[in-house]
Amino acid sequence: MLFLNLAESALEMIPKSLWNHRGIIKKAKKARKQPRNTLLDRTLHHKYMSELEGEGRRGRPDIVHFCLLEALGTPLNREGMLQTVIHTLDNYLIYINPKVRLPKNYNRFVGLMEQLYEKGRISPRGQTFIKLRKGTFTDLVDEINPSYIIAFSRSGSPKPLQEVFTNLGMLENLMVVVGAFPRGHLSEAIVDVVNELVSIDFGTLDASIVTSRIIYEYERAIGLSKKRLKKR
Amino acid sequence: MLFLNLAESALEMIPKSLWNHRGIIKKAKKARKQPRNTLLDRTLHHKYMSELEGEGRRGRPDIVHFCLLEALGTPLNREGMLQTVIHTLDNYLIYINPKVRLPKNYNRFVGLMEQLYEKGRISPRGQTFIKLRKGTFTDLVDEINPSYIIAFSRSGSPKPLQEVFTNLGMLENLMVVVGAFPRGHLSEAIVDVVNELVSIDFGTLDASIVTSRIIYEYERAIGLSKKRLKKR
Repeated sequence: MLFLNLAESALEMIPKSLWNHRGIIKKAKKARKQPRNTLLDRTLHHKYMSELEGEGRRGRPDIVHFCLLEALGTPLNREGMLQTVIHTLDNYLIYINPKVRLPKNYNRFVGLMEQLYEKGRISPRGQTFIKLRKGTFTDLVDEINPSYIIAFSRSGSPKPLQEVFTNLGMLENLMVVVGAFPRGHLSEAIVDVVNELVSIDFGTLDASIVTSRIIYEYERAIGLSKKRLKKR
Repeated sequence: MLFLNLAESALEMIPKSLWNHRGIIKKAKKARKQPRNTLLDRTLHHKYMSELEGEGRRGRPDIVHFCLLEALGTPLNREGMLQTVIHTLDNYLIYINPKVRLPKNYNRFVGLMEQLYEKGRISPRGQTFIKLRKGTFTDLVDEINPSYIIAFSRSGSPKPLQEVFTNLGMLENLMVVVGAFPRGHLSEAIVDVVNELVSIDFGTLDASIVTSRIIYEYERAIGLSKKRLKKR
C-alpha cells in the first residue's frame, strides 16, 4: 500500500475575519451561498486575501483538485493499492475513499468540498466517500504508522525520481508527501517528521505533476503495468 | 523535440444549431456572453447536447485543460523540448507556445479559449502565445513531418509504457498522440496515419494521466532529470 498525503493544502473555507466584507458577501450571494459556507478561492477572493496571514499559500483548491484527479485515476488506485489523504494548512484531514469518482469539473469539485465542510462527510447511499476531521500531519502519521516517509520538496536533497523507489524493501507501507500549495516550502512541523526530503528537479514543479510522477514511478518499481497488461 | 498532439479534443464553441435554445441563451446571458462566443461544456449544456451528433465525445474542455497543465509544467517543456498542439474533433488546430503560462483556474481557461476562437490568436504584448487555424490531424502531420508517430489508445497493442521509448534512435522528432475526449476511440482517420498504436494499461486512463506519464517516461529515456539535477 502506498499512502499519498497532500500536505498543507491550500484548501479552506472563507475565514471568519472576511465574512462581513461587502465584496465577499456579494460574490457568495451570486452563487446562492453564505460566506461561511464558501471555499476560499484566490480567483474570486484575491482582493480580500491580502489581510490574511500567510495568504500566499492559501485559497487554491484547484491544486488539490488536480492532484486528486491525477492520483485517483491511476492503475495503482484502481488496484486498491493507494490511499489518499489531504492535510490542510489549517489542520484538517480529509480521507478519500479510493473508489470515489471525483467531479472532473472544477466548480462541481468546489461544491463538493463545501458540502464536506458543512456536513463532515460525503456519504451517498450510506457509503462514506469522503470524510473530514480536525487533525495535524503528525496525527495522520501516528494513525497510519508508515514504515518510511518520503517528502518531495525543492528544498530537499537532489535525487532523480527513478532512484527514489529502488530499495524495494521499503515499498510496503510507504508514505509519500507532496505539498499542495502554490509557493513556499513544507514547514518544519512536517520536515522534522519525515525520513527523507527529496528534490526531483532543480525547478519548482506543480504538485499535480509531482503526484502523477511519484505514482507512476512507484507502479514501475512494483511492476504493476506489466501485471495489468497480462490481464487483457 | 517531442511533439505532443491532443487529438480529436472535445473542445468547440456552441454549435449554430443550439444558438437559439432558450436555456442556452439564458446561461450565456448570465455570463454576459453570446451563445456563439461560448465554449460548449457538458457541465452547463448537458440537457441540450442530446440532439448533437456524436455528443458523447463533445463538450469537455476540462480534459484539454488538465492535459495542457500536465504538459506545460514539465521539465521537458521548460527545456524547450516539447511542442504541444491541440487538434479538435471539428478540425481546428491550436498551437501552444511552450512559454505560455496557462491559467490554472478552469473558468479562466474557458475564458481564454473563448477569446482565442473569437480573435484567432492570443497575443499579449505582441508575442503570440496561442494560435488557432482550421486543419485536420493529417494537415498537422504534413506540417510537422515527424520521424515516427505513436498514438496511445486502449484499442492499441499492449505494451508497457516503459518499453515504448527504449529504441533511442527514434527519440528525435517523435510525435505522440493522446485522444482528449471522454469516451470512445481514436478515429480511423488518425489510426491510419500513425506508425504505432499502443495500449499501456488494460483499463481506460484519463488523457491527463497518459499525457503526464508519456512525458515523464520520455524524460527518463533521454536522461533529463539527472542532467537537470546537476544544474543546481
